[in-house]
Amino acid sequence: MRAVDIIMNKRSGKELSREEIEFLIMGYVEGTIPDYQVSAWAMAVYFQGMTPRETAYLTEVMLKSGETIDLSGLPGPFVDKHSTGGVGDKTSLILAPLVAALGIRDPMMSGRALGHTGGTLDKLESIPGYRTDLTVAQFKEILLKDGFAMTGQTKEIVPADRLLYALRDVSGTVESIPLITASILSKKVAEGADALVLDVKFGSGAFMKDPEDGEKLARSLVDTGAAMGKKIIALLTDMNEPLGNMVGNFLEVEESLDCLEGKGPGDLMEVTLALAARMAVLGGKAKDADQGRKLCEEALAEGTPRQLFLDNVQSQGGDIGKLLELRGTCRSSFAAEIKAEKSGYISRVDAWEVGHAGVQLGVGRNRKEDAVSPTAGVQFHKKGGDAVRQGDTIMTVWGKDEAGLAAALPQLQKAVTYGDAPPPKRTLILKEIASA
Amino acid sequence: MRAVDIIMNKRSGKELSREEIEFLIMGYVEGTIPDYQVSAWAMAVYFQGMTPRETAYLTEVMLKSGETIDLSGLPGPFVDKHSTGGVGDKTSLILAPLVAALGIRDPMMSGRALGHTGGTLDKLESIPGYRTDLTVAQFKEILLKDGFAMTGQTKEIVPADRLLYALRDVSGTVESIPLITASILSKKVAEGADALVLDVKFGSGAFMKDPEDGEKLARSLVDTGAAMGKKIIALLTDMNEPLGNMVGNFLEVEESLDCLEGKGPGDLMEVTLALAARMAVLGGKAKDADQGRKLCEEALAEGTPRQLFLDNVQSQGGDIGKLLELRGTCRSSFAAEIKAEKSGYISRVDAWEVGHAGVQLGVGRNRKEDAVSPTAGVQFHKKGGDAVRQGDTIMTVWGKDEAGLAAALPQLQKAVTYGDAPPPKRTLILKEIASA
Repeated sequence: MRAVDIIMNKRSGKELSREEIEFLIMGYVEGTIPDYQVSAWAMAVYFQGMTPRETAYLTEVMLKSGETIDLSGLPGPFVDKHSTGGVGDKTSLILAPLVAALGIRDPMMSGRALGHTGGTLDKLESIPGYRTDLTVAQFKEILLKDGFAMTGQTKEIVPADRLLYALRDVSGTVESIPLITASILSKKVAEGADALVLDVKFGSGAFMKDPEDGEKLARSLVDTGAAMGKKIIALLTDMNEPLGNMVGNFLEVEESLDCLEGKGPGDLMEVTLALAARMAVLGGKAKDADQGRKLCEEALAEGTPRQLFLDNVQSQGGDIGKLLELRGTCRSSFAAEIKAEKSGYISRVDAWEVGHAGVQLGVGRNRKEDAVSPTAGVQFHKKGGDAVRQGDTIMTVWGKDEAGLAAALPQLQKAVTYGDAPPPKRTLILKEIASA
Repeated sequence: MRAVDIIMNKRSGKELSREEIEFLIMGYVEGTIPDYQVSAWAMAVYFQGMTPRETAYLTEVMLKSGETIDLSGLPGPFVDKHSTGGVGDKTSLILAPLVAALGIRDPMMSGRALGHTGGTLDKLESIPGYRTDLTVAQFKEILLKDGFAMTGQTKEIVPADRLLYALRDVSGTVESIPLITASILSKKVAEGADALVLDVKFGSGAFMKDPEDGEKLARSLVDTGAAMGKKIIALLTDMNEPLGNMVGNFLEVEESLDCLEGKGPGDLMEVTLALAARMAVLGGKAKDADQGRKLCEEALAEGTPRQLFLDNVQSQGGDIGKLLELRGTCRSSFAAEIKAEKSGYISRVDAWEVGHAGVQLGVGRNRKEDAVSPTAGVQFHKKGGDAVRQGDTIMTVWGKDEAGLAAALPQLQKAVTYGDAPPPKRTLILKEIASA
């Protein structure tokens, strides 16, 4: 078998065999196939695509390149959620304890903020003492005790993805639906979940700008999951505006607590409950999404999810006392406000602009090695659809330092568009995509 | 400027600027841009193509990567011919002295046999003493004295092409028309010719199997040449059967001499005269191809081209006495014959099969570092269209050794197909493609 023949087979639109994909990817991981062949192959995949069967082979080979977490024999069901990334998206922090209250265990491996998108690990680490570098043994123990555990991906998990992603990043082959699919699914299957709910976001603050592209990715994820025997439901959700009223690390922890106490903003609760309801269905706790949502609302009313969240904070080394004490006060002293430029209605607060302003503020990072600030962020007093009078405060803004704050303010100003009439109401959950 | 943005621009079908192409290719040659980015870019070019302007930029940048031969100020006109490669194609050896007799100087840099295709340098080197490693000074001197000179490409000429070609070969990006165009044109422009005739071959023994692909390549070469201010005429010629009755190194030198003495086979003379006639037109010696052909036929009848060929042999270190002495006898002792399996007509002697059998015999090579034999080859006594009786000798075959001969014979047998009636007559010169 020769790598160049595999490249040419893909180039001419052929479906690659499991053996061909394994030869190429394992050869790359082991160093026998050079990166210039893999990047040419990735570009051919960009143009020719992959069948769900091929994408499943690729996912399986990537999985096999490293360690996986074995939850077999342990009491489940194990259901996780994954989002393709957005701005102000703190649903993981809310729905993990929420479905745990229904008896579903969520083994959650999360990522960090990069570019304009936020990262669950950065948010959790803004809680004093909270650790996200659990060993596999700790991860399993906390998962069984609290019903969920939150950790980062160890370097033993899917090393092929780290190598491939780094190569795609510099070879112009990131935007390939089968390659994105295999990257997401290999990591999620490696963490041991039986079933998955996927939040595939579209819009300015999402990776996929058009709902059509988002739907293609959702369909690819669901079909590839089916080819691998994994139950997956994907929701296509709107990410043109930040989700909720807080964008920041500790700010988003606070807003998650608000949600767990029944005081969450409407858009955030709608998306969180829609995702949690599908997790309830996949975990066998509800016959359909409506029943799942009802169970989640009942659990929230009883207060169990909030307690499970605090239990998890303690289990992962966090200081509950400090968390509650800091609530409402953990803010940078470099603060400013964004005021309405005119009277009328806010048409939109653009998620992409807010996400990028967030990097300036210290919420996110442009390079993996950069640090983030717990006290930076944006609080929205008004969002798209709200009536405003000139001079009203739209946002309160906190920067890690003076320069970051100054750089972010014009971009946040630009994020707001105005109209004379209320904008058409956004449909947050555009579509549900599940295997046949 | 970032290489990844250039890759993504090409990926999305944009026309790259001269600056982008220069950044990428010169960066590659200088080692600042890694091969994994260039191979991904080449694959994007395979799918998205290039405009003639872009291809001209690429050709110019590749040219600039090394030395070029400056013939300005020297008495021309300088016109060369290039073939995309075939089996039994010895037209270079005939037409260079032929157009020299008309007062056109041909600065010819040629290649070696690779795969099933033969190489002009290997053929010339089968003449005892003949040297093809001329310095630039020797090349110019012989060119002016004999009207043509034949040499190999030095490593200072278009180093970008050597690097790029090696990368394309292992990354599945050889078959890209703009990349082939830039590779051919950069080398041909580097040798200093004012105008070019291109023999773009199609058929089983050619690089392009379909005439449609051949025409696309011819069109790309002509249009890119025009964008660079070079006059180019391309002929699309049939390479389904070997050209002429000899395939081999010294065998083809002999057949070239036959042609220069007016005893050449019809198919070979037809293609040679068609190409030489266009060289006469581009060199300003004839108003059209018909007149060019007439001038060439007159020159052959006078015998000047034969004398110029022998003069060149002497100028390049060859031994004319030995050449003429070896004529008709320089044959390996490992010989066999291919007999007609049935009576009727030969439909075709397949060029691809003959070319690959030639590698076994020692005419050609599969790897650059392999040696070739002067005494190996095939002589055809019958070809497509000829009537045969069972047992008639179709070919005499000479191998470099017993094993090579044994390996080639079944393939040569397979190369011959038979019919009950004569096959339709092949059109050797399918089309002329010139700039508007």
